Amino acid sequence: MARARTGDFDSYLLDAAIVSARIDARWVSVVWEDGRESRFHHVWLRDNCPCEACVAEVTREQTFELIAVPAGDLVPESVAWSPSSLALTWTGGHPSVYDAGWLRAHDYSTGPVHGRGPARVLWDSSLGAPPAFDGAAIHAGDDDELFAWLTALETHGCSLLHGVPCTETAVGEVAARIGIVRETNFGVLWDVKVDDDPVSNANTALPLPLHTDLPTREYQPGLQFLHCLVNEAVGGESILVDGFRLAEELRRRDASAFDVLTRVPWDWANRSKVTDYRWVSPVFVIDAAGQLSEVRLGNWLRAPLTSAPFDDVEAAYAAYRVLFEMTVDPSFQIRFRLGEGDLMAFDNRRVLHARGAFDRVGRRLLRGCYSERDELRSRLRMLARARRAAQLHA
Amino acid sequence: MARARTGDFDSYLLDAAIVSARIDARWVSVVWEDGRESRFHHVWLRDNCPCEACVAEVTREQTFELIAVPAGDLVPESVAWSPSSLALTWTGGHPSVYDAGWLRAHDYSTGPVHGRGPARVLWDSSLGAPPAFDGAAIHAGDDDELFAWLTALETHGCSLLHGVPCTETAVGEVAARIGIVRETNFGVLWDVKVDDDPVSNANTALPLPLHTDLPTREYQPGLQFLHCLVNEAVGGESILVDGFRLAEELRRRDASAFDVLTRVPWDWANRSKVTDYRWVSPVFVIDAAGQLSEVRLGNWLRAPLTSAPFDDVEAAYAAYRVLFEMTVDPSFQIRFRLGEGDLMAFDNRRVLHARGAFDRVGRRLLRGCYSERDELRSRLRMLARARRAAQLHA
Repeated sequence: MARARTGDFDSYLLDAAIVSARIDARWVSVVWEDGRESRFHHVWLRDNCPCEACVAEVTREQTFELIAVPAGDLVPESVAWSPSSLALTWTGGHPSVYDAGWLRAHDYSTGPVHGRGPARVLWDSSLGAPPAFDGAAIHAGDDDELFAWLTALETHGCSLLHGVPCTETAVGEVAARIGIVRETNFGVLWDVKVDDDPVSNANTALPLPLHTDLPTREYQPGLQFLHCLVNEAVGGESILVDGFRLAEELRRRDASAFDVLTRVPWDWANRSKVTDYRWVSPVFVIDAAGQLSEVRLGNWLRAPLTSAPFDDVEAAYAAYRVLFEMTVDPSFQIRFRLGEGDLMAFDNRRVLHARGAFDRVGRRLLRGCYSERDELRSRLRMLARARRAAQLHA
Repeated sequence: MARARTGDFDSYLLDAAIVSARIDARWVSVVWEDGRESRFHHVWLRDNCPCEACVAEVTREQTFELIAVPAGDLVPESVAWSPSSLALTWTGGHPSVYDAGWLRAHDYSTGPVHGRGPARVLWDSSLGAPPAFDGAAIHAGDDDELFAWLTALETHGCSLLHGVPCTETAVGEVAARIGIVRETNFGVLWDVKVDDDPVSNANTALPLPLHTDLPTREYQPGLQFLHCLVNEAVGGESILVDGFRLAEELRRRDASAFDVLTRVPWDWANRSKVTDYRWVSPVFVIDAAGQLSEVRLGNWLRAPLTSAPFDDVEAAYAAYRVLFEMTVDPSFQIRFRLGEGDLMAFDNRRVLHARGAFDRVGRRLLRGCYSERDELRSRLRMLARARRAAQLHA
């Protein structure tokens, strides 16, 4: 069956045919063969006309501008349909034809729309270890293993790869399987090893309490990758805690401490001779939809607290103490030792990480890099898109 | 006068001496020679002890962990002071000595604390043109001109440099005077020129309506740099609009449209064969302090709106139309032609940019890159820190 043009490069399965359509006062109603009825507002349909006059053919980016049409002309005058398409003619004569598969995939009138990521899975110590995948296969280009890995990284916020080649550049190559590596003042790829003149406590043999990396930035990195090249040290165990799980538990146990940590800003700062990154933010950030979007924590990366109102300072410290004590509660922690070739990847804005102190006699070298959640989500969508295209052409 | 150690690498002028101090029930009160009285909570002072046992000497990062001390021990037992320092002894015996200059700079009890950026200046067409600076001097390493430029970029969100060398790499070199250049899927440095197979409407001769770059990312770039290498085209004028000014004006004219644009999420998406970046966010983002922190706009970078509740869709479109009509109102716009060697830098999360359509016969080549507000603020603080150090040692 010939399919209508859509305004993007994706593939849309036609999982139900259109059986009827009608123009209502404010929307067009479409009835599908499975009985579902969808409603699309007039203005929405006009805005999403996929024709070549409205969407540039090469880029599939919109050239139509809503304000070029008087609001009164955003009304359909006639409707027609086939099992696989909906056709409208607008006041003034502009015709629009919508592919039924595209239309159903964008039905915002009857619940969640496809393309949102898999649901978040919160975890505690009962998870045992991060979900693990075949790092050699992923590094070599296996897209099915990549898809499985990234799905776990999206849902659990933590993951482990085994068998990643122990080269100096492998961690960047694995991250590039997802997308752009984020350079920071620490470089594109950086080492976690003991330095004689360390720029950070990370480069000492000191234990590092649970933290996120770079809470001192407005743009705290979304993804962190740590590849173990050498681990002959005694100690230096890796510890991960699901910060969102911690937040939910805190909300349950002590709603007022949770409220303080979402409301009262903390000051974050790096201490350096050459840069001066600072940011002011509560420990927990809630997004516009009321969902937790970010945790920020790092005991040694706090600046003197000067952004909180004077009368909130003691409450801020008290809530911080409650939370910090939870981070060291083993019932929230997973602990494991990174072996050579292991690569730990996690959502740095959700999952806290730490390491125990280690014996400096044995060598321990991790090589790391950052990327963003944007890259993860784009790659997951591209992999899902490829699956849909294969299904459609099968 | 010998100064006490501080927990960072900054320099603190001693602009007022301590004349007395006393331990109150919940805080320590410090009286200065100019009559000011500051209060510092006990827990805050213990947390900010700068001694070598609490702050690592080499990194100046804290090793002290608050939870290592029972809450009941966070009480000072005795206080002493000199004109230039405050000394406390804590329950359990730990001694802390604070430099008076540091203490006064971090006084959170009597109003704003130093180190926050200069105040935002909103603008409209009466600004005429972006604040302009000597790009050749900045490129060559002049820190005073750099400081003047970055201050304008921080306050106005837009700026122009003249005389930047017309080389392929100069835009990256100028951005690197601030900090890390942000790589995206468009590369580290990218061209705005007419392509025969464009990946974006930016690489056509089409006019581009007012927009921010990459609204399709959670991490919309904070800074954008556009360096004009060739401009022989007719047309292609640059247009800038202060998105925060627009927001304030919209709030004044139509509070309900403003509310809708801060509350109802829009769907943003790039259209590409190789990536699939999307984000969901209202047009205006308000931060925890109630201040505008971000504008997101780009007509051809909107995805079909599916994240708004069904009953908000028409209101979302109506508010979007009101705002979009304001963007094309000349009273908010500054317009200018980029000449060869000009470099336009702006806050991409505040200032909208656009260009008129141009005649393809004349060549026009801009070379651009992105960075982040984090980098701008860090560089500004480092330049200010250098000024304080020079002043202190003068």
